[in-house]
Amino acid sequence: MASMTHSSLPLVFLCSLFYVIFSSFCDCKSVSSITIDSLRASLVKQEDFIVFSLIERARYPYNSFAYDPSFLGNQNCSFVELFVRESEAMEAKFGRYQNPEELPFFPDYKQPQLAPPHKFPNILHPPAASVNISRKIWDMYFNDFLPLFTKKSADGNYQQTVASDLICLQALSRRIHSGRFVAEIKFRDSPQNYTPAIQAKDSETLMKLLTFASVEEAVVKRVFKKAEIFGQNVNLGKNNVKGVESRYKVEPSVASKLYQEWVIPFTKQVEVDYLLRRLI
Amino acid sequence: MASMTHSSLPLVFLCSLFYVIFSSFCDCKSVSSITIDSLRASLVKQEDFIVFSLIERARYPYNSFAYDPSFLGNQNCSFVELFVRESEAMEAKFGRYQNPEELPFFPDYKQPQLAPPHKFPNILHPPAASVNISRKIWDMYFNDFLPLFTKKSADGNYQQTVASDLICLQALSRRIHSGRFVAEIKFRDSPQNYTPAIQAKDSETLMKLLTFASVEEAVVKRVFKKAEIFGQNVNLGKNNVKGVESRYKVEPSVASKLYQEWVIPFTKQVEVDYLLRRLI
Repeated sequence: MASMTHSSLPLVFLCSLFYVIFSSFCDCKSVSSITIDSLRASLVKQEDFIVFSLIERARYPYNSFAYDPSFLGNQNCSFVELFVRESEAMEAKFGRYQNPEELPFFPDYKQPQLAPPHKFPNILHPPAASVNISRKIWDMYFNDFLPLFTKKSADGNYQQTVASDLICLQALSRRIHSGRFVAEIKFRDSPQNYTPAIQAKDSETLMKLLTFASVEEAVVKRVFKKAEIFGQNVNLGKNNVKGVESRYKVEPSVASKLYQEWVIPFTKQVEVDYLLRRLI
Repeated sequence: MASMTHSSLPLVFLCSLFYVIFSSFCDCKSVSSITIDSLRASLVKQEDFIVFSLIERARYPYNSFAYDPSFLGNQNCSFVELFVRESEAMEAKFGRYQNPEELPFFPDYKQPQLAPPHKFPNILHPPAASVNISRKIWDMYFNDFLPLFTKKSADGNYQQTVASDLICLQALSRRIHSGRFVAEIKFRDSPQNYTPAIQAKDSETLMKLLTFASVEEAVVKRVFKKAEIFGQNVNLGKNNVKGVESRYKVEPSVASKLYQEWVIPFTKQVEVDYLLRRLI
């Protein structure tokens, strides 16, 4: 067989070669550029969206119909669960879960069919990447958190209500499960700090190693400030509109409580669970 | 047949009677309490959510794959159109379009099957309620507006990108089509002001009657201010996080341009179109 010169290489092969070299370069660059600072910057941006999501959910009252499994009659789950299951199945078809940052609440979906494959940078250690506390997030959100910032009434906007719930849930899940990435970076930066406790399966010591009280305090304060800023009613002074209430759309103390009582502890639980599987 | 006394009325009938009386009372109260001030207050709240939606969409780059109909091969529409069609069909099943404020972009769906019926207050004049400029909003958003505030690159988050697009589109559509409610209230408040121009099919005069330059100017300024406030990077001063950019997440001038060039003119077009059908 005659050897091929560069000039005789088919265009499609050249394109594939370029794609492989280019995408590998991108991955190396992306992975190597992920630092604890860049991760923290991403978490800070996610806070904004979590606060926006709460404000949006607070536009609707509690709408209890959506959460009582008995309401749908012969269905085996609540209106909100059915909506989330169907939404996630559709989102999976459109490729949402190609991105390792996204975890579904009901992960029994087919592979994506419609979006082109994309090589997301994935730095996670495979046996630890499956850490998943979605069920716990779900229960916390509906049982403990939602009643704190919604009015006890109904307005018939059930679909809009559960769609807002799903946006809140997805934002919280992405934030909390980012603990996997945080734990991986911390472990890579100084494996010697974590290895003895991992080998001893010592969750308590790992939790201590991962706890920085001053950082956590700053996060809680910043979330409070964001809820104050994003949840205020913005007026031009002279143009005050009648009928717009003056108080915050979501109480800043409720937003900061979300972080203090659940988001931060859950994230640290994900970090500990991840590290416990880091040497498998 | 023996006449029934009150005490012998079956419970189910009593409950139905109570429901009819109560829901009618609620509707009367709701309809009579809709004023131009309460509508304006609702529009002001919607501004917040529109600005939040733009900020969320700006987290992702343009992702051109999503908008080119040729990319899906044997499908006849773009990735985003397919996603919006499937999302709306699902949302319709969960009852979204029972609320007359919500209009789908592709309205060929079955009746809602899962949500219980809810009697939304509907003050619209039936022949005029069908005013719908969804196609125009769709074209404006994708052709004119989206390129103004997204980076020209791709990150593979195609589903998340088009889901953000749908949230922006729905927020814009609800805001712009609220012009139907505004026009109805204005007409009811002083039909004599509008009737001659409606009878003469004089769009130009109607547009003049509906234009209040100082109010429009205030709205545009307020949207600019909201984009400044909601799109800032909130820090605690001493806790500045490395890697978080200092500029706005969406340029305030882009948000105010959206209102000045499209949202306000489109809303007024809906108002004129509605009034032209108000005496049918």
